[in-house]
Amino acid sequence: MTENIFSKVRNQVPIVHNITNYVTANDCANMLLACGASPIMADDPAEVGEITACCHSLVINIGTLNERTIPSMLLAGRKANELGIPVILDPVGVGASRLRAQTAFHLMEEIRFSVIRGNASEIRTLCYGNGKTKGVDVSEIDRITENNLEQSVIVAQEFCKTTGAVIVITGIIDIVADTSKAAIIRNGHAMMSRITGTGCMLTSVIGAFCGAVPEHRFEACVAGVCAMGICGELAYEKVTERNEGTASFRIHLIDAMSRMDDEMLGQRSRMEEIELRRM
Amino acid sequence: MTENIFSKVRNQVPIVHNITNYVTANDCANMLLACGASPIMADDPAEVGEITACCHSLVINIGTLNERTIPSMLLAGRKANELGIPVILDPVGVGASRLRAQTAFHLMEEIRFSVIRGNASEIRTLCYGNGKTKGVDVSEIDRITENNLEQSVIVAQEFCKTTGAVIVITGIIDIVADTSKAAIIRNGHAMMSRITGTGCMLTSVIGAFCGAVPEHRFEACVAGVCAMGICGELAYEKVTERNEGTASFRIHLIDAMSRMDDEMLGQRSRMEEIELRRM
Amino acid sequence: MTENIFSKVRNQVPIVHNITNYVTANDCANMLLACGASPIMADDPAEVGEITACCHSLVINIGTLNERTIPSMLLAGRKANELGIPVILDPVGVGASRLRAQTAFHLMEEIRFSVIRGNASEIRTLCYGNGKTKGVDVSEIDRITENNLEQSVIVAQEFCKTTGAVIVITGIIDIVADTSKAAIIRNGHAMMSRITGTGCMLTSVIGAFCGAVPEHRFEACVAGVCAMGICGELAYEKVTERNEGTASFRIHLIDAMSRMDDEMLGQRSRMEEIELRRM
Repeated sequence: MTENIFSKVRNQVPIVHNITNYVTANDCANMLLACGASPIMADDPAEVGEITACCHSLVINIGTLNERTIPSMLLAGRKANELGIPVILDPVGVGASRLRAQTAFHLMEEIRFSVIRGNASEIRTLCYGNGKTKGVDVSEIDRITENNLEQSVIVAQEFCKTTGAVIVITGIIDIVADTSKAAIIRNGHAMMSRITGTGCMLTSVIGAFCGAVPEHRFEACVAGVCAMGICGELAYEKVTERNEGTASFRIHLIDAMSRMDDEMLGQRSRMEEIELRRM
Repeated sequence: MTENIFSKVRNQVPIVHNITNYVTANDCANMLLACGASPIMADDPAEVGEITACCHSLVINIGTLNERTIPSMLLAGRKANELGIPVILDPVGVGASRLRAQTAFHLMEEIRFSVIRGNASEIRTLCYGNGKTKGVDVSEIDRITENNLEQSVIVAQEFCKTTGAVIVITGIIDIVADTSKAAIIRNGHAMMSRITGTGCMLTSVIGAFCGAVPEHRFEACVAGVCAMGICGELAYEKVTERNEGTASFRIHLIDAMSRMDDEMLGQRSRMEEIELRRM
Repeated sequence: MTENIFSKVRNQVPIVHNITNYVTANDCANMLLACGASPIMADDPAEVGEITACCHSLVINIGTLNERTIPSMLLAGRKANELGIPVILDPVGVGASRLRAQTAFHLMEEIRFSVIRGNASEIRTLCYGNGKTKGVDVSEIDRITENNLEQSVIVAQEFCKTTGAVIVITGIIDIVADTSKAAIIRNGHAMMSRITGTGCMLTSVIGAFCGAVPEHRFEACVAGVCAMGICGELAYEKVTERNEGTASFRIHLIDAMSRMDDEMLGQRSRMEEIELRRM
């Protein structure tokens, strides 16, 4: 994992341009601020190029895409590529409609993504066009378990080869893969799936981390996934201690990120890195 | 009230398609997850039909309607009718502009709603075109009290006859009515009107409950209204105990839903069912 | 400061029309409710005039402006001017794109604003076209400090002369200025910049206060700025006491507003009023 990522983010304060959905935009903005970055949300075609140009990374999230914001995603993505700014894709619910699938495929054709992060159904849809999405949630059949873990890493690696992007598949077990290596991450808590936006927030955090260390995309993703997972564990501890529910969990999750540092990240990360030749 | 509604929702995990406003979309998504459902928000005409088709219910909320989302409401509503999926209408602030009124009337002409939920001013506007809305809040003159309760039930019943929808009028006292029976519900707390989105969240919860037991719309509405009211009472207890304010109340409200079960719902519901012939 | 502002707002319950961004719309609505006002968000050109006409003030926030909402801002602003309803401008990130700058200048040409509130970079951009914005945050170079305070007051006063609006510049030190007087406010806490939306929420609160006492715009702004600053101080105390982070801070901030009264406002305000001739 990249060393001192929190110090770096908090010193540099990368500005992250988010073209994202209106459901979790507030959570993403607050999570970005919590991890040390500065968020800007802007989605009109008339300004997105300029906005991206003054940012350190661009996050494209298709959660509530529409005819006005799809061209914005393309414009901003191209500008980011032109300027060498990392671009992260979150293909929310990509299996739920042709519009989402077509948009995602179009974006992947036109834009070089640094990272693509989704749940197993979303990544499977992008790879094979056949993820069995359940709304915006992963379906039972696609879920990553200890049994299909090796297979899932191979999927991620193959998809990485096609796209050039670091692939992040999140679920009970998380996978980060590029063409030569992969990390298996076992941080997190099941309650993370009982609030909206944990995926979106993670994608934005990865945007912040890539903005700070663009030359270490793989490490930035691993750090982001571990950090979010640890926040989930800490939030669950608080909820249990205080006898609370899911809305409090969401507050504690962002609280935890705002108090996280490199030492805690190093100590609590449960990550296993593997060489992909072995597989 | 339908038995074991929470067990049913949490077992089935109904997917609820929300075409809703951007002010409370996050609250609705988190409240749906809290009660055991899976939310999806999508409002582009190019995808709403397909999204509705993979869902168990559709919630149409006109809170921040616009020229792009109005056609989406019609398309999704027609698709839901075609497939027999319950459709719930929340006519937010319908008395505040002609656009809202025209849209609501157009929707009611084109779509068979399973449930319509609003405050007394909103329902009166839909019935008679003369609700005295105060922004998005109920006006003093329309407010349901013990004095006008019988009259309000008759309004609800009449409106039910015209529309075929179960009518839910919420306020200090809540009414659920179909053509043959009505329920008067006295759960809840005044602090619910000091945060945004309690109405929207309730409508989404009703969407989840109808998605789980579409053959028992009346009972699903009663259960939803009681559950939200009880959450309001529990949240107020927490706020008092901890010396907090309205934002904490909102967190405790969703927390309470995430911890609610059928036993608590049964024990704390304060509901009186009446035969409508009597009135 | 205007006396008894909280009593007035809570008695009158001014309705505030917000044409605002989707990132912080929920926070603005809840903050308005917390201070005693009633929020309505509506941004379609087909309804904004009518909505404004039934409100006590209009807040225009360009945070996520787009081709559909820009005409709405103009229509609503003109209607408010026609009816003598206070209009407040929040030029979020105005230095970040030409679209934002052009829109802000166009709005200022067409609409008489009662108040313009921004950070120092945003106000500088509106005055001289050269604020060095850092995304939506103030840049180091524009930041108000004890050293450039007098200069900043002069900028505000000049800008007030050009626009006729009360100018509110917020940061570590806040300035409220009209042509004849200025107030320097030293309430608040640094953690306010670690969550999204404190600026937007303040602008909405100023909208509520101006709606209640439209004849005392300057005093309404001073009260709003002091109140938000005090909420920030109280929220920080809670966060420290409970060992929490930034998301809890946001909850406590709104909680504090919901419990604030005129006595607390009077006691904790740290405001120094100055005659502008002196400078």
